[in-house]
Amino acid sequence: MELNEVTISRAIVEEQTRILLDYLEMDAAIVGGGPSGLACAALLGERGVKCALIEKKLSIGGGMWGGGMMFPRIVVQEEARRLLDRFGITHREYAPGYFVASSVEAVAKLTAAACDAGVEFFNLTTVEDVMIKSDARVSGLVVNWTPVEMAGLHVDPLTLACACTIDATGHDAVVARMVEAKGAEIAVKGESFMWAERAETNIVGHTREIYPGLVVTGMAANAVAGESRMGPIFGGMLLSGERAAALVAEKLGK
Amino acid sequence: MELNEVTISRAIVEEQTRILLDYLEMDAAIVGGGPSGLACAALLGERGVKCALIEKKLSIGGGMWGGGMMFPRIVVQEEARRLLDRFGITHREYAPGYFVASSVEAVAKLTAAACDAGVEFFNLTTVEDVMIKSDARVSGLVVNWTPVEMAGLHVDPLTLACACTIDATGHDAVVARMVEAKGAEIAVKGESFMWAERAETNIVGHTREIYPGLVVTGMAANAVAGESRMGPIFGGMLLSGERAAALVAEKLGK
Amino acid sequence: MELNEVTISRAIVEEQTRILLDYLEMDAAIVGGGPSGLACAALLGERGVKCALIEKKLSIGGGMWGGGMMFPRIVVQEEARRLLDRFGITHREYAPGYFVASSVEAVAKLTAAACDAGVEFFNLTTVEDVMIKSDARVSGLVVNWTPVEMAGLHVDPLTLACACTIDATGHDAVVARMVEAKGAEIAVKGESFMWAERAETNIVGHTREIYPGLVVTGMAANAVAGESRMGPIFGGMLLSGERAAALVAEKLGK
Amino acid sequence: MELNEVTISRAIVEEQTRILLDYLEMDAAIVGGGPSGLACAALLGERGVKCALIEKKLSIGGGMWGGGMMFPRIVVQEEARRLLDRFGITHREYAPGYFVASSVEAVAKLTAAACDAGVEFFNLTTVEDVMIKSDARVSGLVVNWTPVEMAGLHVDPLTLACACTIDATGHDAVVARMVEAKGAEIAVKGESFMWAERAETNIVGHTREIYPGLVVTGMAANAVAGESRMGPIFGGMLLSGERAAALVAEKLGK
Amino acid sequence: MELNEVTISRAIVEEQTRILLDYLEMDAAIVGGGPSGLACAALLGERGVKCALIEKKLSIGGGMWGGGMMFPRIVVQEEARRLLDRFGITHREYAPGYFVASSVEAVAKLTAAACDAGVEFFNLTTVEDVMIKSDARVSGLVVNWTPVEMAGLHVDPLTLACACTIDATGHDAVVARMVEAKGAEIAVKGESFMWAERAETNIVGHTREIYPGLVVTGMAANAVAGESRMGPIFGGMLLSGERAAALVAEKLGK
Amino acid sequence: MELNEVTISRAIVEEQTRILLDYLEMDAAIVGGGPSGLACAALLGERGVKCALIEKKLSIGGGMWGGGMMFPRIVVQEEARRLLDRFGITHREYAPGYFVASSVEAVAKLTAAACDAGVEFFNLTTVEDVMIKSDARVSGLVVNWTPVEMAGLHVDPLTLACACTIDATGHDAVVARMVEAKGAEIAVKGESFMWAERAETNIVGHTREIYPGLVVTGMAANAVAGESRMGPIFGGMLLSGERAAALVAEKLGK
Amino acid sequence: MELNEVTISRAIVEEQTRILLDYLEMDAAIVGGGPSGLACAALLGERGVKCALIEKKLSIGGGMWGGGMMFPRIVVQEEARRLLDRFGITHREYAPGYFVASSVEAVAKLTAAACDAGVEFFNLTTVEDVMIKSDARVSGLVVNWTPVEMAGLHVDPLTLACACTIDATGHDAVVARMVEAKGAEIAVKGESFMWAERAETNIVGHTREIYPGLVVTGMAANAVAGESRMGPIFGGMLLSGERAAALVAEKLGK
Amino acid sequence: MELNEVTISRAIVEEQTRILLDYLEMDAAIVGGGPSGLACAALLGERGVKCALIEKKLSIGGGMWGGGMMFPRIVVQEEARRLLDRFGITHREYAPGYFVASSVEAVAKLTAAACDAGVEFFNLTTVEDVMIKSDARVSGLVVNWTPVEMAGLHVDPLTLACACTIDATGHDAVVARMVEAKGAEIAVKGESFMWAERAETNIVGHTREIYPGLVVTGMAANAVAGESRMGPIFGGMLLSGERAAALVAEKLGK
Repeated sequence: MELNEVTISRAIVEEQTRILLDYLEMDAAIVGGGPSGLACAALLGERGVKCALIEKKLSIGGGMWGGGMMFPRIVVQEEARRLLDRFGITHREYAPGYFVASSVEAVAKLTAAACDAGVEFFNLTTVEDVMIKSDARVSGLVVNWTPVEMAGLHVDPLTLACACTIDATGHDAVVARMVEAKGAEIAVKGESFMWAERAETNIVGHTREIYPGLVVTGMAANAVAGESRMGPIFGGMLLSGERAAALVAEKLGK
Repeated sequence: MELNEVTISRAIVEEQTRILLDYLEMDAAIVGGGPSGLACAALLGERGVKCALIEKKLSIGGGMWGGGMMFPRIVVQEEARRLLDRFGITHREYAPGYFVASSVEAVAKLTAAACDAGVEFFNLTTVEDVMIKSDARVSGLVVNWTPVEMAGLHVDPLTLACACTIDATGHDAVVARMVEAKGAEIAVKGESFMWAERAETNIVGHTREIYPGLVVTGMAANAVAGESRMGPIFGGMLLSGERAAALVAEKLGK
Repeated sequence: MELNEVTISRAIVEEQTRILLDYLEMDAAIVGGGPSGLACAALLGERGVKCALIEKKLSIGGGMWGGGMMFPRIVVQEEARRLLDRFGITHREYAPGYFVASSVEAVAKLTAAACDAGVEFFNLTTVEDVMIKSDARVSGLVVNWTPVEMAGLHVDPLTLACACTIDATGHDAVVARMVEAKGAEIAVKGESFMWAERAETNIVGHTREIYPGLVVTGMAANAVAGESRMGPIFGGMLLSGERAAALVAEKLGK
Repeated sequence: MELNEVTISRAIVEEQTRILLDYLEMDAAIVGGGPSGLACAALLGERGVKCALIEKKLSIGGGMWGGGMMFPRIVVQEEARRLLDRFGITHREYAPGYFVASSVEAVAKLTAAACDAGVEFFNLTTVEDVMIKSDARVSGLVVNWTPVEMAGLHVDPLTLACACTIDATGHDAVVARMVEAKGAEIAVKGESFMWAERAETNIVGHTREIYPGLVVTGMAANAVAGESRMGPIFGGMLLSGERAAALVAEKLGK
Repeated sequence: MELNEVTISRAIVEEQTRILLDYLEMDAAIVGGGPSGLACAALLGERGVKCALIEKKLSIGGGMWGGGMMFPRIVVQEEARRLLDRFGITHREYAPGYFVASSVEAVAKLTAAACDAGVEFFNLTTVEDVMIKSDARVSGLVVNWTPVEMAGLHVDPLTLACACTIDATGHDAVVARMVEAKGAEIAVKGESFMWAERAETNIVGHTREIYPGLVVTGMAANAVAGESRMGPIFGGMLLSGERAAALVAEKLGK
Repeated sequence: MELNEVTISRAIVEEQTRILLDYLEMDAAIVGGGPSGLACAALLGERGVKCALIEKKLSIGGGMWGGGMMFPRIVVQEEARRLLDRFGITHREYAPGYFVASSVEAVAKLTAAACDAGVEFFNLTTVEDVMIKSDARVSGLVVNWTPVEMAGLHVDPLTLACACTIDATGHDAVVARMVEAKGAEIAVKGESFMWAERAETNIVGHTREIYPGLVVTGMAANAVAGESRMGPIFGGMLLSGERAAALVAEKLGK
Repeated sequence: MELNEVTISRAIVEEQTRILLDYLEMDAAIVGGGPSGLACAALLGERGVKCALIEKKLSIGGGMWGGGMMFPRIVVQEEARRLLDRFGITHREYAPGYFVASSVEAVAKLTAAACDAGVEFFNLTTVEDVMIKSDARVSGLVVNWTPVEMAGLHVDPLTLACACTIDATGHDAVVARMVEAKGAEIAVKGESFMWAERAETNIVGHTREIYPGLVVTGMAANAVAGESRMGPIFGGMLLSGERAAALVAEKLGK
Repeated sequence: MELNEVTISRAIVEEQTRILLDYLEMDAAIVGGGPSGLACAALLGERGVKCALIEKKLSIGGGMWGGGMMFPRIVVQEEARRLLDRFGITHREYAPGYFVASSVEAVAKLTAAACDAGVEFFNLTTVEDVMIKSDARVSGLVVNWTPVEMAGLHVDPLTLACACTIDATGHDAVVARMVEAKGAEIAVKGESFMWAERAETNIVGHTREIYPGLVVTGMAANAVAGESRMGPIFGGMLLSGERAAALVAEKLGK
């Protein structure tokens, strides 16, 4: 059989459009493909929640690729070691309670786990706004292609409906700030100074539904709470993603 | 135990420096983290070759993340299906002989496989030049941080020694062109028009050592040969990576 | 009935995808939405040719919107007046044989005529390459989203198959130069000095198939031939588009 | 007769200058060439109002060209279907009450209708400021060439007098914000979250004279009112343009 | 009488359009408003030649404003002192034969002299191309607004007919290179090393008609001839402008 | 005598340094080389005031070069006609009381007049800050090379002492805003809407000392006062410059 | 012995990593390598304090390289002459009490002195944030590579612990503003107008600990205090650096 | 005595101008302030040659500041150790024959040594061209302010006369390429691949007068010769600088 370019094009367009049309309505949309978003997505998918991860950039992984100052290693503490094991991320004990892993492997394994759990990925997709109607809850995302925004073009967005949105956009807390900026009664305090111990301890507690339909996780949770930052230690991020998944699954009755 | 920021920093710097110092000399350096580079790296690692993948960007995956025209799906033909299986990439038969997979999953699983095979990754690392001495072979890479180049700064590079270099930089064939530009007797013809069948059929044949110590794979192989391009079908890329790994392993006696 | 955002999104994606899948194979693809491309498209559509106009920019109309030096008026000579009438473009006789029209109206009416003739438009779409196989003819276009290129992203293109391609990209003669650059035996000489009479007289003669499957029209035709340029007089452009349509229809047996 | 370049130049300059001088004073100036501005202009022109549409960009059409997320289709609901018919825009019923049209055709037909109604177009023209004298009403527009602004040059503007100004600049509500910024007592609240039903229902009501001589239409009307946004459904835009035309015509006694 | 904004606008547009229409055909067009162009224009105007100076930038004066290394002084040697006197430029003898003047005054006085001689100025106007017909002579200039080019917009140019063109664009020799690039038989050698004495001595000799209808002056003359450069001494520039004026006047029979 | 490059360099550096050193202390510094600044400078110079004009750009003339919307003509009303005559600027009566002049000639003649009056020009010089000591008056300017700022370099400024500073920087009122921003008790209200009659009538009244040692003129005067703007009519600018010169001369006892 | 590239690379990486690991904890971190930071570092080092200077740019020296307006000379007054002598900076008395030195020599000698005193330099290193824990004191710096920031990449920082931080970042007072922005009770008033005498007199008094663990010096001290600026006189900068060193040494018990 | 801002400004301008005027004629001009240029300058100065170092950037030091890949350390081999000692640069033996030093200290000490030897520095100064007269030798440099070039401004340069020019501009070999580009009979081959041993061995031999009056040193010498590159080992650079100084001094009879 000779390969046909049109069939290749057709396969790609038809398959992806089928998925896009299917995901115009979903249970949960995770915004941001860093460690907490990926962990949350993988664990939600495992519970059978119909969910997608929406990532602004071309690649998935967020700020984890570069480790600390371009040394591509991350640190995870004892409490979260079980999640490294769960996702199959190799690690080495550097000092008692400090485990070091490859940042590249961490991204790859978390993403692979999410894929295996049936999560769909919409990369190069920017969230421009949210849908909030008379029930005063975030019930959808207004999305556009990232390159349209990068090129400064004026093109209308489309809307994805979702019962629950998870803001995993890091310390910018992009979705939370959007909701705040247009007048909803939430306040994003912004991340505080570096204090790893405190940031790691409190992040799970800050992982919560801050507005009907909108859950924050990872540094977005800490940024909303005005909590400290923690640098290239990722245990709290994974635990926060796990917590967000539990919260959302509970809300959805899964 | 309270988390300590200095210990986190120390763990990252010490671990990565240990690895960097270890890899100042290695068996094989794969330049470029797209599909053929990743497949080659994973298969070389599995054979026990001490190798590293050097990627210019922050993320690994190259041009595969975006599928075709931002529809994040890729197509693989029958001949390469066994490699999808080998790397654990889910796929669906779209038409007889045409298998569709998620581009995000493909990147994640290939990268994970390379990690599992012991490959080291140096991302944000640009190859500026190669080392060629009196034996007239590529015996090392002259590398620098990518952001140094992006910021237009004048900072000297360092050198990594490697018995074999694999140019997996796509149709730019960056390493091959570098060697050509400074006068070595190789010619990079540049990729030709779109013709998927021909490009996919011939790519394995074009995967070869074009200069002592320098093997080309993936679109870099086709670009050197003046071969056609193939678009978002990735079977040939994976098979070329497999072929490059076999060639290099053989040369290294592994 | 209450309006539903998901239905709006679904309607747009489903309708356009249906059209895109349908046009993965077509009779004729016109590249460039300036006056000659639009005239050619409209006249081809009227003859029942399945054709699409592919435009790099967000808007259709090319260089005609700005008239001469931002004075939004164009001039058309006696010979082409019947085409103004055919497309319903209002005009006023300025001097014997010189008719002036609004450049905005000219774009709108030509585009409207093409739509009425059943032409499909793919805007924000860049032609990256062409498909040429063993039959040595342009048999398709390799396309990508323009914003992907504007944003400097690395994303693979898709392929559209077409029996005939019309290069209406203006004096850059983009498709012709692409074919030339990769080694096909055609030469693009580049437009010559300003000489309106000569340029207008010869443009129809230069409108021809310069390579199997590739017809040039408008300033692209003159640029290939090394012909003079003509400035903001548009009769020759329209007549060249008409000629291209006749040539293509004939070749297609329509 | 031989074509003469000087006559071509003279025809363009003389004709357009005649029009510009004529339109230094006019009944109504519509700022912004998107769907509401075009509909308003076309309907005002049909009523015999001397009006011009002033557009910042080179092309007319605003944000409609790209449909939703670069899928060049738009949706119009039942209530506005009669306007599609009136302007000759082909449409297809996708679901009960949802009509889909080509975004390219929509722009072309609306623009053509405005031309046929005698509307003049000043494209590449930026509104820098407004004229407000002792009668505390917007009585003119201070305009400049857009490229002058794009190039960062310091060149003085000119003034166009108009009895009525229509701000159809989309959610930026450029003219309204200008008037607000310099201290007039109006407040632009900014568009709210996505909620198509509400946005479409209320837009006609928000279409009103917000300051003597200044009428807002389309998304500018919703932005002034702090109303929801609606995405790529355009019925409300057309109805708002129609409403603005009626208001202005009434004020002008036409 | 109360000032009326519309009358102000009308006065400016009407007056300048009248002049532009008048100068669509002229005797001589000087391209470039540096010292040699200004001197040439002033002296041509004094002889009653209908001429205009076309300047790419917003301001007239070219490279003279900044003196040497931003010290706003220029030097003129004995031979050209009479031209300083003729144009009323104050100067001081620094050393025997070396006269120093203010660069700002030099620009102002040369420009004023050209105005007094009836020269018209078209600033912000870029020469895109020239008109050459069957008589193989430069018979006109193809011009556009500079900001259109700066903003990267696609807008058609207009044409100005002139019996004689003077290239006074400095060492870029813009018009000469344009004519050369499109195949006319002239060669622009480019300016040579710094050697003031030689450059100043020979510049008048290099001031000549290099192609029918095209005279070069100032550094453009030296650049065409491959002559040395001279730095911030301006005597040769003024003498070359004087020579160009004499040549052109003679050719025009004035 | 053979021309010597070193003598040329020496002449320029020595002459300009002599002047710069002389002007480290002066009576009056005019900031901004537009019409009001030039008129003020020329008239101050005529009265024997030791003054310099400091201009940010390479060329003198400010926003006057481009006339209105790049039509290089300006309008001056009856009241200021005598200043056109005084500076030798040719003009034509367009309508009763409206005189039109070439914008290029206006710049040249005003600059020439200032030169003839002994004004020194420091172009490419940016005012970064002002000197205010215990006497709470502007007693000097902190200046730097404009290209240093354009290139984003970190280089310290120098200080020029002056008894009086005239802010002629147009509607940005740069010096006034600087003084306001650092806490002095003045308020810059910003220019209001277009209203030529009012703006022209009141500008002379707004020309005043707004802080000890700081006089505002031209659009800077209107901007400080929150006065209307006037567009390309320049009578008020010239009259304001004249008024500023009178005020300053009086303060200086000249 | 033949030189080996790998040994060269190893020497550099190993040596610098050893130093970096050593300096993850230090006594004092000076942020900013201008005159006050260098003087402070040199004097701290001489007292045996373990300290490092962290500089954002590639080169050390800050704003001193360019002298005043690119004339590479600096002025130092009598009071600070002894520091010129101490650091071996050649100087010449220009007027009584005013000493002039080469700005290039001043940078070189100050840097050399700091090196001789055992100070480590981390250049191309940006301070992103500070570490503040429950003891409410600045106890560390959050740093990243400057090129990472210049290239707009998303990479996590690392943390350096230090008992004392000296903000020597010039009038931006970068560290102080960072602490202020996240809510600590300090206020950065910003530098005031030029007044050299006052600025030089008061700067030593403003050199103080403004928040536990954070000392300000040089223009950062004046900026925090709202003090005047002084231009290219550097005595106060050196004296302030000396004062900061004394303060810090005392706090550290050295 | 109260500090006076004008005296500070006067001191700087007067001192530097005196030096600039003195150095309009000098024995030797070193272009480029990297290691070889600094070493050459220091050693020439020590021999009593009147010389200046001309550096394009604001800071002196060139590519040495960043060490290797931003690890600020450099390596020097046994042969050049005596130069480290001569310039007082601290070093540590890493392996037999390999000495490591701080890159920051190396720059500072080399610059300090040059200052002590009486070398003048003209930083922010770009060499635009050279002076070559009838004697066919490089007899001067045509220079301009770097920021003028960075800002894209059109300002004339000045000329410095020098008996000998040393091109120490690194692998770009800027001066050599300038001379080559304008037709002198020299060829710059460009640096070859990495091969430290060879590059270091041959660099002193390549340090020579390549054109009358023009000596090349450092990487510029290797680039002219087509020699290998060496990475962050600096012994050859220092030795080449030493060799250049000897050559020049000999030619000058010092």
